[in-house]
Amino acid sequence: MKNEQRREETRGAILDAAALCFAEKGYAETGVAEICDRAGVSKGAFYYHFESKQKVFLALLESWLADLQEMLAHFAGGTVNVPESLLKMSHLMQGAFQADQSKTGLFLELWAQASRDETVRKASIATYQRYQKIFTGLIKRGIREGSLAPVDPVSAAQVLLSLASGLFLQSLIDPRRDWGKVTADSMQILLDGLIRR
Amino acid sequence: MKNEQRREETRGAILDAAALCFAEKGYAETGVAEICDRAGVSKGAFYYHFESKQKVFLALLESWLADLQEMLAHFAGGTVNVPESLLKMSHLMQGAFQADQSKTGLFLELWAQASRDETVRKASIATYQRYQKIFTGLIKRGIREGSLAPVDPVSAAQVLLSLASGLFLQSLIDPRRDWGKVTADSMQILLDGLIRR
Repeated sequence: MKNEQRREETRGAILDAAALCFAEKGYAETGVAEICDRAGVSKGAFYYHFESKQKVFLALLESWLADLQEMLAHFAGGTVNVPESLLKMSHLMQGAFQADQSKTGLFLELWAQASRDETVRKASIATYQRYQKIFTGLIKRGIREGSLAPVDPVSAAQVLLSLASGLFLQSLIDPRRDWGKVTADSMQILLDGLIRR
Repeated sequence: MKNEQRREETRGAILDAAALCFAEKGYAETGVAEICDRAGVSKGAFYYHFESKQKVFLALLESWLADLQEMLAHFAGGTVNVPESLLKMSHLMQGAFQADQSKTGLFLELWAQASRDETVRKASIATYQRYQKIFTGLIKRGIREGSLAPVDPVSAAQVLLSLASGLFLQSLIDPRRDWGKVTADSMQILLDGLIRR
């Protein structure tokens, strides 16, 4: 049991160190030796846990996206009506947007890697598809309960996903704005529409 | 005059070669020597035109964003009403989204660089602000002409910008979908709104 705990700690230390290295120098410029140095672990310990630098990268990606997915699923399954769920969700995004700067660089690095590395690209697409599914379910619920207009749920989910990605991307590049407010205002406009009636 | 033409050609060759190198290997992994090799120019010629690798990167960025800005400004200043302009614009995005894959990698690389390099970050923020201004002007025109609801123009412009950035980001990662159609459908939903009336 103690051994298992130590193993988990080592794995965590490697992930934390890798996240810092990738964010500061970029994925390409970071070596396994450097991650080991920073984590204070041997190369043997590293390769016990991860086959390669790429696997560390994918593990990091997966853990963050799982957190976000859990949050989304929580709201998608909630009991308040869908427009209210969406507004609450957007206020909560403030927290996600204000994540520490070490994660910032890593997300941007992820996207850059996705364009060059087929495994990362596929993992990114699969993640987008999972989010798309959650949002599609949410829109369907809204239409069923009568709070949303009878839109095409897949297209509407796509709008939510793109809007969230675009806001997140901008918040990474320009973190000093109040992205929680910007997101909530954006959601209100999307709910209301732009056309004059 | 001939010399000037040759200089322009050399500059263009350096930019094209750098774009390919950055997209294929990433910014960090590309050296000036490699760009010169690929462009078929001497290091002397390179440094005649550009102070550093970073300046080449910034020049590439500027030229693409200037093209996009021109297209946006053309639509923003058009004579058809604003909702129609926006829908036309989104159909045109198909072309931008289907840009060749060498540019794809470079855009993602740009965002990754923006998180690590203060000069690139500032250039990116300035670009976003220019686009934001164009979209704000467009929304104001729509409200004036009575085709758009009396929304806050700055927030509405932010929604357009985020939606476009998010769609573009996803199209870079997953290029096989029909992004022209997705964008047009998304724009229609944004124009109509989600709330049931």
